[in-house]
Amino acid sequence: MTDSNPEPRGQLQAAPESFIPADLVSAISAKGINAERRGLIKGAFASALATMAGVTTAAGGDPNIVTLPEWSTTLGKSVATHPYGQPSRYESNIIRRQSPGLTQTDQASVAFTPLQSLFGMMTPSGLHFERHHQGWVDIDPRRHRFMINGLVKTPTVFTLEDILRLPSVSRMHFLECGANTALEWGNSAVPTVQYTHGMLSGSEWTGVPLSLLLERVGIDLSKAKVILAEGADGSSMTRTINIANALDDCLVAYGQNGEMLRPEQGYPLRLVVPGVQGVSWVKWLRRIEVGDAPYATKDESSHYVDLMPDGLQRQYTAIQEAKSVITSPSGGQRLKNSGYYCITGLAWSGRGSVKKVEVSVDGGRNWREAQIQGPVLQKMTTRFTLDWVWRGEPALLQSRVTDSTGYVQPQRAALLEVRGARSIYHNNAIQTWRVNRAGEVDNVQLG
Amino acid sequence: MTDSNPEPRGQLQAAPESFIPADLVSAISAKGINAERRGLIKGAFASALATMAGVTTAAGGDPNIVTLPEWSTTLGKSVATHPYGQPSRYESNIIRRQSPGLTQTDQASVAFTPLQSLFGMMTPSGLHFERHHQGWVDIDPRRHRFMINGLVKTPTVFTLEDILRLPSVSRMHFLECGANTALEWGNSAVPTVQYTHGMLSGSEWTGVPLSLLLERVGIDLSKAKVILAEGADGSSMTRTINIANALDDCLVAYGQNGEMLRPEQGYPLRLVVPGVQGVSWVKWLRRIEVGDAPYATKDESSHYVDLMPDGLQRQYTAIQEAKSVITSPSGGQRLKNSGYYCITGLAWSGRGSVKKVEVSVDGGRNWREAQIQGPVLQKMTTRFTLDWVWRGEPALLQSRVTDSTGYVQPQRAALLEVRGARSIYHNNAIQTWRVNRAGEVDNVQLG
Repeated sequence: MTDSNPEPRGQLQAAPESFIPADLVSAISAKGINAERRGLIKGAFASALATMAGVTTAAGGDPNIVTLPEWSTTLGKSVATHPYGQPSRYESNIIRRQSPGLTQTDQASVAFTPLQSLFGMMTPSGLHFERHHQGWVDIDPRRHRFMINGLVKTPTVFTLEDILRLPSVSRMHFLECGANTALEWGNSAVPTVQYTHGMLSGSEWTGVPLSLLLERVGIDLSKAKVILAEGADGSSMTRTINIANALDDCLVAYGQNGEMLRPEQGYPLRLVVPGVQGVSWVKWLRRIEVGDAPYATKDESSHYVDLMPDGLQRQYTAIQEAKSVITSPSGGQRLKNSGYYCITGLAWSGRGSVKKVEVSVDGGRNWREAQIQGPVLQKMTTRFTLDWVWRGEPALLQSRVTDSTGYVQPQRAALLEVRGARSIYHNNAIQTWRVNRAGEVDNVQLG
Repeated sequence: MTDSNPEPRGQLQAAPESFIPADLVSAISAKGINAERRGLIKGAFASALATMAGVTTAAGGDPNIVTLPEWSTTLGKSVATHPYGQPSRYESNIIRRQSPGLTQTDQASVAFTPLQSLFGMMTPSGLHFERHHQGWVDIDPRRHRFMINGLVKTPTVFTLEDILRLPSVSRMHFLECGANTALEWGNSAVPTVQYTHGMLSGSEWTGVPLSLLLERVGIDLSKAKVILAEGADGSSMTRTINIANALDDCLVAYGQNGEMLRPEQGYPLRLVVPGVQGVSWVKWLRRIEVGDAPYATKDESSHYVDLMPDGLQRQYTAIQEAKSVITSPSGGQRLKNSGYYCITGLAWSGRGSVKKVEVSVDGGRNWREAQIQGPVLQKMTTRFTLDWVWRGEPALLQSRVTDSTGYVQPQRAALLEVRGARSIYHNNAIQTWRVNRAGEVDNVQLG
């Protein structure tokens, strides 16, 4: 699919045994970790401790004479160096990546988020995945217009300034492309979590509640059943959204993670439709039409429909069901030695919040409850972690989320039984990462 | 101080009256907004509506023939254009800014966050303020070492890899320089909120709990009273932190807002000390020493002490007390016309969470409770908003936070009475923005 181990930290090393939480050590002892292995891990730790702190021995090799690194002995850089800051040059390999061969052009394509290298619940805006239908555009905000028409009393055209001056709301929500994890419907050889699940983000969005806008232009609630959202890019992306969603928690957003939207994310205006697949979060939003029936446009009739085993299609399948994935250790990484690892990943649900995440290291036979990193928010990514001691044996890592509605993320076999393997969209099956005796991690499909 | 109106959206325009929330309209009517003014606002709105949606009339001027903007009719840019994304070129004026004349060199200086242009509770990493003592450095993470020594059983040296493999925690916290709002102790003419309050951020931090590290190296709790944190840059910044803080919620952090720390923020390791002034969040962290008494180093004896009216100094004043500020409308902006405005700002407390924010438009005589944008988190920035109709009269805008301990942010006069005007640090007084009849907003000090 591409380089399987692109990031600097693809090699994972176990932590020393002394850092394993005490309760986990007891659990391992009870299961009979042998004395020899304990000794080996301790030895590795003692050896690491022998290293001196950030210093190198002076010429001549006398270990008692050390020189400090240059960053400790020189004048650093000015605060005026980067009026808008950048990551360290040592992190230049942590980038969005295209999946070569996945699409025929670079404009109607995808660049995936490097989930394996990220922390916490927020996605850095610079690493937010991209999915465009005719490339991205950098719109002049002074010339952009946004119109609401259709079943409303006063069809209205807004400038960006008009929108900016209205009552604003900020909320954190995940955004996931409906086609995320698409290749896992088949017999995928997608190597890394960047390519299996990297069309996912968690951001803070700021904008005007769509319900407020619709109310003020005089929506005809006796007839309105849907809205159509339309983008200003060359693809004129159009999506039907049911009126319940539109009046619930949608935003006409201009802000993302504290600043104006990035061009790739729809600058200057984007529709935020919490819990719903990304294609409906129409970028470069130029129009909302209120209607009385679904519009059956191209991207909701020939695309973004789910082909079922009987040959029929599920249409308007908007909600992203509960899903989770382990981001580390994950495909393409390697565990260099046995010992303690912090398993970590993300969980989310388009129907509410994350109630519980469980992790299995034996392909789903036994489960342990993971620790949740708060705050746990509605329709937002949630970070989970779990202490694990790898003893050098093959392992099958899985995570399983239960959301606030009680829904439990399905195993792949169970999902295929209902939906078949011919779909592209809405694959929320449990992901399995296989660890072999050499510590190599790859993507494997059970059942 | 510099250009007083640097950002593109320095000119604010009122929203049409039809967008004013109904309850606010009633309140205004009760106070006697006159019919003539109502008519004027409606007229302005109707005129704005006449604009067509993102289109320009064709050559010849026939208003029925329009051409779409070029971004709607051309092929956009590839997903491979920016492997690490950037803001729109139309936002290039939203940057960190130095305050000319504030410091003698650009390395021991400050670059402020443009709070007046930001939304929500998160600060974009690229706009996070900088405060360095000998410039910033871009450390090679493979060569960096972090040591814990002093009153511990096993003095230990860690590589970055050692830290990365340990149990991790992600939490959102504000970070404020103790010298934020420093010039307001005197008769300041600082024009904008970027310079008055722009040494403030809200971020998600990821790292290893310091308590876990101290426990595992065998801290001697019978003797330990403080820790000393030391940075690896040329200034060798050192700060004493009391043991209660160190064992509470501190992190040895490597992640900020989902990715690795930026170099200006301490890459690859920074101490996170929630609620405490920024100088103690030691960047480029290379050492923590456990001790039995404060160390009285340069940056806690000759600097970062509060000179009191009696000539004595408050020392080790770590906690950032509850504080808030209106970020829009704020100094340097201009209200172009009367009508609806969404007053917005940030509130935070080093002792807990934000319980309530009130806003006054008459210099503190009357207060209305602002709306809080959740989630409300411990020791984290909280966004507030309040609907306001400006009727063209002079106004004095203030915000006042009450935190979860019941502490109420003081008026400037009350704070000066206790602390005098000779201090540099820990100014958490209520900020006043004055609006004149022309709609111009400036910084004014009452009392």
